[in-house]
Amino acid sequence: MTTQRTDPEPAETNRIEAFSDGVFAIAITLLVLELHVPDAPEGELWHALRQEWPQFGAYLTSFAILGIMWINHHSMFRQIRRADRGVMFLNLFLLLWTALLPFPTNLFAEKLKDHTIDAHVAAAVYSTNLTLAAIAFSAIWWHVLRKHLVDHEMTRSEQRKSVLRYSVGTVIYAATIGLSFISAPLTLLLQFLLALYYGFEQLRTRSDLTAVDENA
Amino acid sequence: MTTQRTDPEPAETNRIEAFSDGVFAIAITLLVLELHVPDAPEGELWHALRQEWPQFGAYLTSFAILGIMWINHHSMFRQIRRADRGVMFLNLFLLLWTALLPFPTNLFAEKLKDHTIDAHVAAAVYSTNLTLAAIAFSAIWWHVLRKHLVDHEMTRSEQRKSVLRYSVGTVIYAATIGLSFISAPLTLLLQFLLALYYGFEQLRTRSDLTAVDENA
Amino acid sequence: MTTQRTDPEPAETNRIEAFSDGVFAIAITLLVLELHVPDAPEGELWHALRQEWPQFGAYLTSFAILGIMWINHHSMFRQIRRADRGVMFLNLFLLLWTALLPFPTNLFAEKLKDHTIDAHVAAAVYSTNLTLAAIAFSAIWWHVLRKHLVDHEMTRSEQRKSVLRYSVGTVIYAATIGLSFISAPLTLLLQFLLALYYGFEQLRTRSDLTAVDENA
Amino acid sequence: MTTQRTDPEPAETNRIEAFSDGVFAIAITLLVLELHVPDAPEGELWHALRQEWPQFGAYLTSFAILGIMWINHHSMFRQIRRADRGVMFLNLFLLLWTALLPFPTNLFAEKLKDHTIDAHVAAAVYSTNLTLAAIAFSAIWWHVLRKHLVDHEMTRSEQRKSVLRYSVGTVIYAATIGLSFISAPLTLLLQFLLALYYGFEQLRTRSDLTAVDENA
Repeated sequence: MTTQRTDPEPAETNRIEAFSDGVFAIAITLLVLELHVPDAPEGELWHALRQEWPQFGAYLTSFAILGIMWINHHSMFRQIRRADRGVMFLNLFLLLWTALLPFPTNLFAEKLKDHTIDAHVAAAVYSTNLTLAAIAFSAIWWHVLRKHLVDHEMTRSEQRKSVLRYSVGTVIYAATIGLSFISAPLTLLLQFLLALYYGFEQLRTRSDLTAVDENA
Repeated sequence: MTTQRTDPEPAETNRIEAFSDGVFAIAITLLVLELHVPDAPEGELWHALRQEWPQFGAYLTSFAILGIMWINHHSMFRQIRRADRGVMFLNLFLLLWTALLPFPTNLFAEKLKDHTIDAHVAAAVYSTNLTLAAIAFSAIWWHVLRKHLVDHEMTRSEQRKSVLRYSVGTVIYAATIGLSFISAPLTLLLQFLLALYYGFEQLRTRSDLTAVDENA
Repeated sequence: MTTQRTDPEPAETNRIEAFSDGVFAIAITLLVLELHVPDAPEGELWHALRQEWPQFGAYLTSFAILGIMWINHHSMFRQIRRADRGVMFLNLFLLLWTALLPFPTNLFAEKLKDHTIDAHVAAAVYSTNLTLAAIAFSAIWWHVLRKHLVDHEMTRSEQRKSVLRYSVGTVIYAATIGLSFISAPLTLLLQFLLALYYGFEQLRTRSDLTAVDENA
Repeated sequence: MTTQRTDPEPAETNRIEAFSDGVFAIAITLLVLELHVPDAPEGELWHALRQEWPQFGAYLTSFAILGIMWINHHSMFRQIRRADRGVMFLNLFLLLWTALLPFPTNLFAEKLKDHTIDAHVAAAVYSTNLTLAAIAFSAIWWHVLRKHLVDHEMTRSEQRKSVLRYSVGTVIYAATIGLSFISAPLTLLLQFLLALYYGFEQLRTRSDLTAVDENA
């Protein structure tokens, strides 16, 4: 760490990453606090646990989303050479939606089986939270490209492609807000599949970008 | 980390920073536990969520304050060369008010719409917590200047200016205790704006101080 | 950390380890939230606390298990040279069962003294969680061996032995699911003893593997 | 971190320290979850908050204790060159009492004003938790001295003195278990004063030990 004195910028993103890792790790672990022992009649525990499937589904989906967001964040910040004030603010904006996610997760889980408008409202709140997180990711990436804070040389066309990919992601998440008003369970399923898809997509992209290092 | 053997002091502040980062990250993420699914009649979820605006307002304000405090802490400790026992104690005093903040946040959120003296009491407790955190920041800075523990050479006039800036901040926070007895919602709004202002101010100052490094 | 630029893979596992350490540390500390002050008649606190032995027993067992899992994780990742996408996914799969453990712990503690099928169901859910964690450990190890991601040279026979050891562990945990339907308290006791056994076994193995370094 | 390959032992204690820091930071921050908004009649909030003084007193005492324990742990591990299996187990034993502390804190706070035996039982449970933590500290120190795992050369007489100091601390904490049956509020006050005393004592000792480095 003593090298930090002569080369302060990498240290800078290191401490942002450490703080962000903390928030991701805590948010992903706090999700469990919303799983409660069901208040079932004697001998009916197994039945009662199965009735709680929306809780487990929402837990699993939010766990997958936060896990993939962490991988995504990790991968993005590996490419950021140094953090200016814009990165710090936009990263706090991203962490806001990360730290908040346990609340809409709980809301979604409790209202998923509801037959009124409430199930749709809860799904839309959940989808809005994820859309805002996607916007935050896009904004950080757009900002670091514009300010030349990335670690490696990208051609203009590669930059345009990477921005496009983030924008498409944001539009897809925005579309799930609309889907929320059609079917809440379908929205949950789609969010889970999107997390898996982005996990694979993200990791594939990352290996491409780091292929040179890995082969070295 | 092996360099720690020959140069123990930077490692010293590193571990203080890591511990402090942990407390900031946990406190900022625990705030979400105070957001509860409203106990609304069927089909009234959206209406009920809008009624909970004091909860969301207090969440957002405390999130912004803790985020800015973390940036401020980060920035201050980058300038501290080594930590003596005074720094360790004063930093624990600061972390005390950091870790406590979720409690007055909850108090403020629950009483904000109250029409009795309670709203003013809750706002004053919240403001007092922030004032004590501001005093802790001032005390750390004053201590490290007095003990020559800062990393770089500051002129006497720059030192006086930096101490003055912390003192003004403390006085402003103390003034919000008074404001609490005039209007609780106005106090919350001002606290939010103060956090934004200090965020920008802090980041601007920080870039000035590190400008040489960044241009290197 | 600046060396990360020229040698990205060790940094890669470092950040996975840091994130995993966070999840382990948080999960192990969140267990305490399930210990409640008993609602006892006046003067009966000591008696009431003794009645809560399943809570304390489940707390202690899960604490030991998470502590040993952390040592195990630490020890395994010390041998992993670099992490590909498979390691990242399988590690998230492991963290899923780590972060979830406080829920079955709570379930087990509340139903342990129940005289219906519920005690067996709760014990089986707890044992299933641990079995899935054991499967995740096996899968990570099997994957890194197959992809030659380990740090040191192992002979084919040593590799086969190490995989066998993980497989035996998984089979033993799977067997505790069956035991759950015979006796819930016995299952808890066995889980505690298994954690202790794996602690000693793991640490012995680890010292063997690192003996060369330690004697250097 | 790449140096870890050629010099594994310092990395070893580094990761133990990082995990322990996590547990200390989480336990110290979770204490706030036991502070609840009082259920007071309208306009009586201030009065109700003052009635909650045992909650605030127990919060402050446990915060001070965990803070000092962290400084103590930090300082002890700075002197430990490498960690064998004994250190890992004894450190988990210490973390067990660290992570558990929020529970007896809550118990103590709720029963402090009770006029039955319950106040004494709660105080004794709290004091026992702290005594076990003191035993864990002594055991780690005794173990690393016996196994020659300390970083610097201590004379036999210095070693005996350091062991004696830990033993005296343990005896004092054990004595507070007895005091618990005389007066619960006095026990809380003494625990707070002991934390302050050990804070100063610890920091003084630490500066002595590191004086050579600091003057270098």
